[in-house]
Amino acid sequence: MSRSALLTDFYQLTMLQAYFDEGMQDTAVFEFFVRALPPGRNFLLAAGLEQVLSYLEQFRVTEAELAWLREQGGFREPFLAALGALRFCGDVHALPEGTACFADEPLLRITAPIAQAQVVESRLLSLLHLSTLIASKAVRSVLAAPGKLLVDFGMRRAHGAEAGLLAARAAYLAGFSGTATVAAGIEFGIPVFGTMAHSYIEAHADEVSAFRAFAHSSPANVVLLIDTYDTERAAEKVVALAPELARAGIRVRGVRLDSGDLAAHARAVRAILDRGGLREATIFSSGNLDEWKVRQLLAAGAPIDGFGIGTALDTSSDAPFLDCAYKLQEYAGEPRRKHSEGKATWPGCKQVYRHLAPDGSFDHDVVALAGDPQPGTPLLLPVMRGGKRLAPAETLASARARAAAEMARLPPQLRQLAPSSAPYRVEIAPGLRALAAELDRVPH
Amino acid sequence: MSRSALLTDFYQLTMLQAYFDEGMQDTAVFEFFVRALPPGRNFLLAAGLEQVLSYLEQFRVTEAELAWLREQGGFREPFLAALGALRFCGDVHALPEGTACFADEPLLRITAPIAQAQVVESRLLSLLHLSTLIASKAVRSVLAAPGKLLVDFGMRRAHGAEAGLLAARAAYLAGFSGTATVAAGIEFGIPVFGTMAHSYIEAHADEVSAFRAFAHSSPANVVLLIDTYDTERAAEKVVALAPELARAGIRVRGVRLDSGDLAAHARAVRAILDRGGLREATIFSSGNLDEWKVRQLLAAGAPIDGFGIGTALDTSSDAPFLDCAYKLQEYAGEPRRKHSEGKATWPGCKQVYRHLAPDGSFDHDVVALAGDPQPGTPLLLPVMRGGKRLAPAETLASARARAAAEMARLPPQLRQLAPSSAPYRVEIAPGLRALAAELDRVPH
Repeated sequence: MSRSALLTDFYQLTMLQAYFDEGMQDTAVFEFFVRALPPGRNFLLAAGLEQVLSYLEQFRVTEAELAWLREQGGFREPFLAALGALRFCGDVHALPEGTACFADEPLLRITAPIAQAQVVESRLLSLLHLSTLIASKAVRSVLAAPGKLLVDFGMRRAHGAEAGLLAARAAYLAGFSGTATVAAGIEFGIPVFGTMAHSYIEAHADEVSAFRAFAHSSPANVVLLIDTYDTERAAEKVVALAPELARAGIRVRGVRLDSGDLAAHARAVRAILDRGGLREATIFSSGNLDEWKVRQLLAAGAPIDGFGIGTALDTSSDAPFLDCAYKLQEYAGEPRRKHSEGKATWPGCKQVYRHLAPDGSFDHDVVALAGDPQPGTPLLLPVMRGGKRLAPAETLASARARAAAEMARLPPQLRQLAPSSAPYRVEIAPGLRALAAELDRVPH
Repeated sequence: MSRSALLTDFYQLTMLQAYFDEGMQDTAVFEFFVRALPPGRNFLLAAGLEQVLSYLEQFRVTEAELAWLREQGGFREPFLAALGALRFCGDVHALPEGTACFADEPLLRITAPIAQAQVVESRLLSLLHLSTLIASKAVRSVLAAPGKLLVDFGMRRAHGAEAGLLAARAAYLAGFSGTATVAAGIEFGIPVFGTMAHSYIEAHADEVSAFRAFAHSSPANVVLLIDTYDTERAAEKVVALAPELARAGIRVRGVRLDSGDLAAHARAVRAILDRGGLREATIFSSGNLDEWKVRQLLAAGAPIDGFGIGTALDTSSDAPFLDCAYKLQEYAGEPRRKHSEGKATWPGCKQVYRHLAPDGSFDHDVVALAGDPQPGTPLLLPVMRGGKRLAPAETLASARARAAAEMARLPPQLRQLAPSSAPYRVEIAPGLRALAAELDRVPH
């Protein structure tokens, strides 16, 4: 179902039939943007473009779907025939994945005959929303734990299969080291991590038997879970077992803590491992972590080498949605503006220009009409023309490198976890303000 | 990817290889439960069982997936052969979908050889978590707006395709009237609703042209969106247009409000419609709604007949996850208990017994060992034996009827939106307490 063109809102189809009946086929410009940053975010990290382009390329209503629509009544044959023939043949401009961005800035612009631009709305929103939401959450842990191993552990609590897979991808794009989700490794080539759960330990008569058996079964991947019963006692058992394993050529790579006071346990366990000659064994921790707890652990000097972050990451639990929209900005060459109370939009086809400070960091952005070029670097780039990609799909590694480069140029007050007292400046160009005011004077 | 058996955590596979190497094939009992109700929930509504059973029936690692695992290294051929042959042949006991339930109560129990019971953990958690999360959110709107038309509008902000589809299903199960998501109509037979977006209005030269064209295109489905520019003026336009439409045999079924002070607009619009002879036209509202806003609107006497609820529903935004777990409770006939700090579990294979008050409402539940029968009605029922369903898939209508019956028997303090000052009583039977204490005395 995730590839179905009818993974959309019903009103797209009723509108399409009306456009068809009215012969409305002119070019529409829609833009995706976020109305306001959610609480607890100083910036967003654009992601999901690859999924959108793939969706647009493959858009097609099947015969079976047309048959279902026919049964519902309300749709007439000439329209259904046109719907079956509909392909996306429009143009797309977008921020490359991994670009830092802000409220009011279009992340993506579609220029296409109105039926094509309209019908893709729901799924396009779904894809850009999810990936941008999770990438923007994930990058906060990356900023909080520079140089640490960060692994996505969240698939089980992600909101379904696609959420788990795309969260793994978005987290990796944002700078995570990998994921526990096997299917994300297969689908996106992301490094996959994992060793054992508590159930494995509990199924054995005692912890040492479990540790020994696992080490012999996965000798290259010996990271032992030590909090099932008593963390420090388990660490002592690891130390006692290590020489026997070493004689079999097996090295204990590390241990994992998953509960309790992680800082205190990590210190005690580090001391036990060091005393026991396991100085190179790492300590990995997990268990209801988020970027705040990671920062707190590191600030407390906890000797933790890596973190598994699950639920908070995969559900973006402190901000589980973005107030995003995909709005008609122009039709038949004329700018359009929604006036609904509290939801008015900036009209017209727009571009975002980024200005740098002398040290190369981001200084401010300007949102302007695309036909009113401004100084600064334009951020929306052409990625699809006439329904065809202008370049092969970008590799995830390339988008990940861009995200890292963007983070290096983010002003310090935006890199902190707490809300910045000086939000990033996004200016609306005078020409765009003038157009909005002019449209407000037109009667409807 | 959503059907892949490798939509799982990597550690399931490393554990399975170790179980294989060790010849551990005894029967394991795992149970799914929620550790604590999230803030803002007085009960949960069990959902997602149908998806779990379908997953278990279809579990199979493909040749292509085995090839991928082979490439990763670390897995040996005899194990990969066994993994390729692995099918789920175990037993399942579960609460039927639509059953009200509480913390510490198993919603589902798997009894199977340990490899089978272990490998399904991640996806089983994902499926039960998502559907139970959303059903538990949705039913709050149903309780807040008895008799009103409630429609799921959330697919665009749901966390991906599966989340959108399963949210539509969970909401319908909980008592919603339908969804805007077309694919959910196709997949689950849920009634589908929708008419037009603001872009449709904006693409026209004026609102009246848009209303007229839409009415002629979808004459049986004329619900007009009236907040694009000025809500009351648009309502006047609807009234003015209605006689012309009536002459063409088209009835205005209603209007939709999507912004501003919905109560004030609804009152003003109701008066305009009534004065204009459109007494039967309904008012439907949407726009960042949740169960609290719905209750507030109804308490204020707003003349609103139906509500579209989107983001708050599909992301369960006030509580975007459940603290759920799937834990080993018994292996080779012996009870097991995780002791991790703050995460200890009730050991053994369990059953939940419900006790009713004299008026038929739920009084309290008792969680006991399955081998220690108690008074009351047992809630966990056998649904699969030896990997085969014991009955055909339950219809969604049947589960929906059960949810409605359960809500009618829910004590009043649990039906309210605010946290109950008297949480529902879930007792742990003495035999279960004794077993837990006994296991705590065993050294590991």
